Amino acid sequence: METKKTMIHSANYQAVFHEVVAELKNVADQGEVASYIPELSKVDPNKLGIHLSTTQKEQHSFGDADEAFSIQSIAKVFSLTLALKIIGKDLWKRVGVEPSGSPFNSLVQLEYEKGIPRNPFINAGAIVVCDILVSHLKNPKQDLLAFIRKTAGIASIDYSAKLADSEKQTGYRNYALANFMKDFGNIHNDVETVLDLYFHLCSIEMSCKDLTQAFLFLAAGGVNPMTGETVISQERTKRINSIMLTCGFYDEAGEFAFKTGLPGKSGVGGGIVAIHPGEFCIAVWSPKLNRRGNSYMGMRLLEAFTTKTKSSIF
Amino acid sequence: METKKTMIHSANYQAVFHEVVAELKNVADQGEVASYIPELSKVDPNKLGIHLSTTQKEQHSFGDADEAFSIQSIAKVFSLTLALKIIGKDLWKRVGVEPSGSPFNSLVQLEYEKGIPRNPFINAGAIVVCDILVSHLKNPKQDLLAFIRKTAGIASIDYSAKLADSEKQTGYRNYALANFMKDFGNIHNDVETVLDLYFHLCSIEMSCKDLTQAFLFLAAGGVNPMTGETVISQERTKRINSIMLTCGFYDEAGEFAFKTGLPGKSGVGGGIVAIHPGEFCIAVWSPKLNRRGNSYMGMRLLEAFTTKTKSSIF
Amino acid sequence: METKKTMIHSANYQAVFHEVVAELKNVADQGEVASYIPELSKVDPNKLGIHLSTTQKEQHSFGDADEAFSIQSIAKVFSLTLALKIIGKDLWKRVGVEPSGSPFNSLVQLEYEKGIPRNPFINAGAIVVCDILVSHLKNPKQDLLAFIRKTAGIASIDYSAKLADSEKQTGYRNYALANFMKDFGNIHNDVETVLDLYFHLCSIEMSCKDLTQAFLFLAAGGVNPMTGETVISQERTKRINSIMLTCGFYDEAGEFAFKTGLPGKSGVGGGIVAIHPGEFCIAVWSPKLNRRGNSYMGMRLLEAFTTKTKSSIF
Amino acid sequence: METKKTMIHSANYQAVFHEVVAELKNVADQGEVASYIPELSKVDPNKLGIHLSTTQKEQHSFGDADEAFSIQSIAKVFSLTLALKIIGKDLWKRVGVEPSGSPFNSLVQLEYEKGIPRNPFINAGAIVVCDILVSHLKNPKQDLLAFIRKTAGIASIDYSAKLADSEKQTGYRNYALANFMKDFGNIHNDVETVLDLYFHLCSIEMSCKDLTQAFLFLAAGGVNPMTGETVISQERTKRINSIMLTCGFYDEAGEFAFKTGLPGKSGVGGGIVAIHPGEFCIAVWSPKLNRRGNSYMGMRLLEAFTTKTKSSIF
Repeated sequence: METKKTMIHSANYQAVFHEVVAELKNVADQGEVASYIPELSKVDPNKLGIHLSTTQKEQHSFGDADEAFSIQSIAKVFSLTLALKIIGKDLWKRVGVEPSGSPFNSLVQLEYEKGIPRNPFINAGAIVVCDILVSHLKNPKQDLLAFIRKTAGIASIDYSAKLADSEKQTGYRNYALANFMKDFGNIHNDVETVLDLYFHLCSIEMSCKDLTQAFLFLAAGGVNPMTGETVISQERTKRINSIMLTCGFYDEAGEFAFKTGLPGKSGVGGGIVAIHPGEFCIAVWSPKLNRRGNSYMGMRLLEAFTTKTKSSIF
Repeated sequence: METKKTMIHSANYQAVFHEVVAELKNVADQGEVASYIPELSKVDPNKLGIHLSTTQKEQHSFGDADEAFSIQSIAKVFSLTLALKIIGKDLWKRVGVEPSGSPFNSLVQLEYEKGIPRNPFINAGAIVVCDILVSHLKNPKQDLLAFIRKTAGIASIDYSAKLADSEKQTGYRNYALANFMKDFGNIHNDVETVLDLYFHLCSIEMSCKDLTQAFLFLAAGGVNPMTGETVISQERTKRINSIMLTCGFYDEAGEFAFKTGLPGKSGVGGGIVAIHPGEFCIAVWSPKLNRRGNSYMGMRLLEAFTTKTKSSIF
Repeated sequence: METKKTMIHSANYQAVFHEVVAELKNVADQGEVASYIPELSKVDPNKLGIHLSTTQKEQHSFGDADEAFSIQSIAKVFSLTLALKIIGKDLWKRVGVEPSGSPFNSLVQLEYEKGIPRNPFINAGAIVVCDILVSHLKNPKQDLLAFIRKTAGIASIDYSAKLADSEKQTGYRNYALANFMKDFGNIHNDVETVLDLYFHLCSIEMSCKDLTQAFLFLAAGGVNPMTGETVISQERTKRINSIMLTCGFYDEAGEFAFKTGLPGKSGVGGGIVAIHPGEFCIAVWSPKLNRRGNSYMGMRLLEAFTTKTKSSIF
Repeated sequence: METKKTMIHSANYQAVFHEVVAELKNVADQGEVASYIPELSKVDPNKLGIHLSTTQKEQHSFGDADEAFSIQSIAKVFSLTLALKIIGKDLWKRVGVEPSGSPFNSLVQLEYEKGIPRNPFINAGAIVVCDILVSHLKNPKQDLLAFIRKTAGIASIDYSAKLADSEKQTGYRNYALANFMKDFGNIHNDVETVLDLYFHLCSIEMSCKDLTQAFLFLAAGGVNPMTGETVISQERTKRINSIMLTCGFYDEAGEFAFKTGLPGKSGVGGGIVAIHPGEFCIAVWSPKLNRRGNSYMGMRLLEAFTTKTKSSIF
């Protein structure tokens, strides 16, 4: 005796993109392009890209889906994946898995919790993950980039030295976080080395299409259907997905789960990636951010998309 | 072209219960029975019940699945559902949907956020939900109970006057929360009246079997397959499920999502209910709690169960 | 060999009052009358009284110095004095002596510090002091009032039943504080009984003249020069004075010490009492409050007064 | 008509030192030498020095009063004095004057208060003061040292390069604070430059005797009686004294005011300086610290001393 899940008709995705974009035409984009990093503020605010790749390798594209942009915090999924591959569950001794209930760069909870960040997606947690990579990789920057390229099956993915430098020049809050955790003993390497990796990680540039190809393994039990590459075990795939759902959107994680019903991760470059386990990976890009640092239009697009396609996991 | 989700073979559930319980035989139950309410501490700590109802109306039972126990905070799902039915999205002006990152009864975040509780499942949030019910129901206690009975299709569900009284006698923290929010203007009715409803809500006694029958609508798009009753819209069903996933386990929500991969809600009586959308509702009961207030064995049982049945939503 | 302190010429006080008031004529009173208690908002905002009594029993008066007003938190000095007389240093096991660094009615620090209030002058601390009085006095309200009358040598001092009731009706924050501490085990009696004493304490009405007579013992080593009554030991007098200096003005204690250089205590009725050890007790009254809850003009008057008379203790 | 303050018979100070030390012989020193800076942990824990200088230039000495030790945070009084001389009350736009209610190096309050430290004696506040000095001094390190030497009238006072370096190597918390405030815009210069000055400031070595000579101006209205040098105005002298009283002992300021009744400042090197306005400056040194970072024996010595000499300002 079996139960049967309503199937999602993938043939309609392209049409849904058009419908959704048309519907949102009249919605004023109340967001603002990230300005705290000078390099980020130079982006064209009207860019709009959507791309969806299914586990069956179908591709659906809209607008500026092939244009590379700064993926920022979305890259924290790569570093987490690699660190989990390397040290496994020992990672959770140094980073939690609970939502933070605070903005992404708050030091308050870190103080009360003795330097253990709440989860690997707030800045503090991603910095600890970078510290772990520095401890275990021979050439951290090169090796991490090689892992990302192999995961995505795209050899051209690269850091933006200019952006990494721009972040470093204004990254006082991240220096504060790293030094604070170093004081608590939760950063083992030199702060400069760790942050250099962190700033480079956040500087990676990819298109919506690249992103869906890189993260499709999360929708496919750990294996990238495009490359056949086993990125990580099925067990850990599930863990990454669950953390994306509960912690992927700063202090708007509940709102995102509530509205789109998919695990995902956003970045202040205006990108959002989301996963439907077993089905697809979708990426959207619209640079203007809401006041919580997530793409204003991106959030609305995904909400409308999952409503129309009934693809919420709930 | 369609994608197809791996089916969960329900025929095996019964066998899985036995396997899982056998495997956990050697795991020491490190939990402790809740003692802060005198009445709760009287329960037999060795009780163990599991019940699963599928959307196809199949039933699978193990151990003390038919014995009623104090469902405590699990009942907050009922009050949320009824309040959502009554006032809809206006509810979110007075209660948030974000994980709290703090213990269930903390006043700190409430102070920083001007009396707006983080979500409807922490005590403060559930008290505001009760306040809304007091404002809109003619006979709040009777009407809420009638709603719960109808939702479950079980006329015998009832409050425990003894337990409600026990909670009231020791409920200083809840009095603090209610008065604090009243000061911020987020409690509209008399504190005593609101807390009387709240304490009664938490005193409800149900068995694992009752619980799965009552919450099966959350796995079935808002309609209870047992009764045919439309409890709430499909849209709101998804919202409730998403809030259960991100906020259902106090400051262990991430851990639960991470381990079992299902939306759920726990209570300090040792019960846990979890949902697989489209598939089933499962309830477990084991009275000893871990230090975060969730059933120690219940958490482990569900983790083992979803691993074996591959029923994580991630 | 001796050192000699510059003497303060008391003969000039009267003249100084006029000078100071004249100078402040052109300063706009930017304060606002307390409105959170309906009864308090009815006061004439233009009232202005100053009274100074020296340890040599000289009296200097200005304006509405003989008109009774609600002394509010100033009364917390009475309750502290009586509790210290009764249980001595055991008091400090249940209340701290450190400045709070937070508004007078914050619950945050109370949560982090497990229900032990920072000092006896924030609301939480004064409520614990009232709890101690309830535990040790036969007829708490009558006995406390009798103590205050005897301390001041003024038999007509009384509670305002109307004001006490007004505070009770809107005292949700204080109910929150009391219940919160009760939950931590730091309130031993019934919350209603304790708060009834607390609300009555805060409702006491006295004039500036009354206040200086009542608190002159703090300037005279524990003995009231007016009545010859030994109120408390010299040692404890010093302690009360030091707590007034560090904690007497909510989160403006440093500012007050900084500006006037005298230990003192303010109330939201617009009154302020200050002490120069060995010399005098001064009371001012001007109902409009600055945003931190202290009399706007009262603060400026005292600052100008101590500057002119060189009577800062620093 | 005059009031007369009880005179303190200075002739007895020497005898009081012996009495006090004799009485405390049987009190176990429960403190521990500061170990977080390797250099500091090398000090002989049994050192004990007391020195008192009166405004009449009398000198009273006991034990290791002539031996130089690391004055640590006591030096923050020098930097505050110099910054006040240079920019006056504009200083208070960037640093508060309120007690912190938190440990000396907490980041929590700093986050809630947008990078404005509570007062100039917690680490964050002292770092902002150093930032101001860097902005206004030509050669910050040399100029600050020259000011200290001139204030004390002791040309041999110097930084300890070794200690400054030791602090820098382990000063992650201070790096966190400085970067955090830089992010809020409250550090105007390069973090490294500012902290270099800060670490040097804290590394200054002086004896108890030196300290009383250097800070005697605070007991004498701004003029050093030893050198005749006007260090700062009488007005600002009072302000510094009031801040020492309310904020000079981390989260033990109230306890210190309560026990000794004198404005003062402590350092983790085990030194404490205290002032009686108009009368004297006293310095004690005993390296073992209580759990709040103040000299265990030093606190007790001063308490016993002011009790015996009745020299509390309260």
